[in-house]
Amino acid sequence: MTKVAIVGYGNIGRYALDALEAAPDMECVGIVRRRVTEPTINGYRVVTDIRELGAVDVAILATPTRSVEEHAIQCLELGINTVDSFDIHTGIVDLRRTLDPIAKQHGAVSIISAGWDPGSDSIVRTLMESLAPRGISYTNFGPGRSMGHSVAVRAIPGVRDALSMTIPVGTGIHRRMVYVELEDGADFKTVEAAIKADAYFVNDETHVMQVDSVDQLNDVGHGVNLVRKGVSGKTHNQLFEFNMKINNPALTAQVLVNVARAAMRQQPGAYTMIELPVIDMLPGNREDIIRHLV
Amino acid sequence: MTKVAIVGYGNIGRYALDALEAAPDMECVGIVRRRVTEPTINGYRVVTDIRELGAVDVAILATPTRSVEEHAIQCLELGINTVDSFDIHTGIVDLRRTLDPIAKQHGAVSIISAGWDPGSDSIVRTLMESLAPRGISYTNFGPGRSMGHSVAVRAIPGVRDALSMTIPVGTGIHRRMVYVELEDGADFKTVEAAIKADAYFVNDETHVMQVDSVDQLNDVGHGVNLVRKGVSGKTHNQLFEFNMKINNPALTAQVLVNVARAAMRQQPGAYTMIELPVIDMLPGNREDIIRHLV
Repeated sequence: MTKVAIVGYGNIGRYALDALEAAPDMECVGIVRRRVTEPTINGYRVVTDIRELGAVDVAILATPTRSVEEHAIQCLELGINTVDSFDIHTGIVDLRRTLDPIAKQHGAVSIISAGWDPGSDSIVRTLMESLAPRGISYTNFGPGRSMGHSVAVRAIPGVRDALSMTIPVGTGIHRRMVYVELEDGADFKTVEAAIKADAYFVNDETHVMQVDSVDQLNDVGHGVNLVRKGVSGKTHNQLFEFNMKINNPALTAQVLVNVARAAMRQQPGAYTMIELPVIDMLPGNREDIIRHLV
Repeated sequence: MTKVAIVGYGNIGRYALDALEAAPDMECVGIVRRRVTEPTINGYRVVTDIRELGAVDVAILATPTRSVEEHAIQCLELGINTVDSFDIHTGIVDLRRTLDPIAKQHGAVSIISAGWDPGSDSIVRTLMESLAPRGISYTNFGPGRSMGHSVAVRAIPGVRDALSMTIPVGTGIHRRMVYVELEDGADFKTVEAAIKADAYFVNDETHVMQVDSVDQLNDVGHGVNLVRKGVSGKTHNQLFEFNMKINNPALTAQVLVNVARAAMRQQPGAYTMIELPVIDMLPGNREDIIRHLV
């Protein structure tokens, strides 16, 4: 059994525990949090320092993206493999560069940006590009919540709570449906104008609606539609499409558990998911998997 | 430039040459055929023995499936990497077992069953299974020609030529639309009954139609619809779907060229496509690919 610690216990951490409990080959050896408010969660030890958990093979970093690097370095320096779902697309190469030498120095593996996008979608995008090397791909997100956009709206004066839904309108273009709960005395028209002028929204078709309770709209469902039309060899009009409709944190957590497994099978270093053989994400005998899935 | 030989020059071999000519990092150093009827094809040397071509990094085995093993062994024993699209699903593990020690002994790499199914579909099936470890997947083929079924019909007495189209009706069930051109004096009802009783057709809904010219119906388009509904962690109703509409030999040939590239990046041994990192199938700088596709 691979011994796994969950670092951070928000939404993703909870679902990661579900996925670990469902995995036949992994066990959760504890949860690492900034503060211990209860000694156990569902029977699992809660600690503030991963070293208190004894032998740990892999740390699932279920922390906010901006603290992934710090936690990854700490774990790797202890020789503990790490996996994360760092999701700032423009920062992925830098994070990989930072973690790769640290991982190698300590004989550990770090798998970064492992969620569904970046993550499993990245594998599909890479595969599609290989199948039709010339052509155009589009990633269409949603319908589903955008955390980044929702946070941006909450920062606007007069907004008590907000939800920004991403609606795909095709060819990688998205409509933003923004639901806001206002503070007492706030003016809707002023808030609406501020949202539409915000850098997160200024380039997209944006609709703002006032609601009594944002919490009532909460739904963690999300979706993706990836399409590529291109050329295989010299043959045009090759068409590829990938769709999914999923519970967002549940899928992210499942991917984290999959790459925790894969981390045990790589040479030391830092990797993105497109650098892993997909077979390494599944439990069980290799020949059985080939017989069943190839 | 990676030096590639094409072994066999039927439909797949011709499209493989297209894909090699379109690849920025590979060159065709010649074509190997059983008989040399012309000294060059499109300016490429034609030989009967791969050793006549001098240094070859990878041999693309574009031969019939049943002669793949023999050609692969010959090449691997010369230290030449091989790729093939061996497509008998039940024979894949055995072929891998046969070629793996030979490849290792000669410091070579063999990538087997690399087409679209088995092949790129296998990667998608494996990825989907990892994303929802419990659940059901269906592979729906078509509309498109089935070579195996067409050959089976041609073997029936009274049939001059035949085409069997695979029509997906969902949940992995397929309808067979069989078009037959009869020999003079053959009885359609007798042929129809023989086809429907054949092991290839007896379990499927099969319709047989007599046509004047099977050749007139020739179209190498094909398609796939892969679906999985399952459970990520403990969260049910996760939905995944992959679709493509493609020119069949063009895609198979593109995959063969992709894995020829990947073969140069693996340790000696025999592999199926699910054992390769997808990034290894693309040309170019690794960090650029990560920046662009992750």
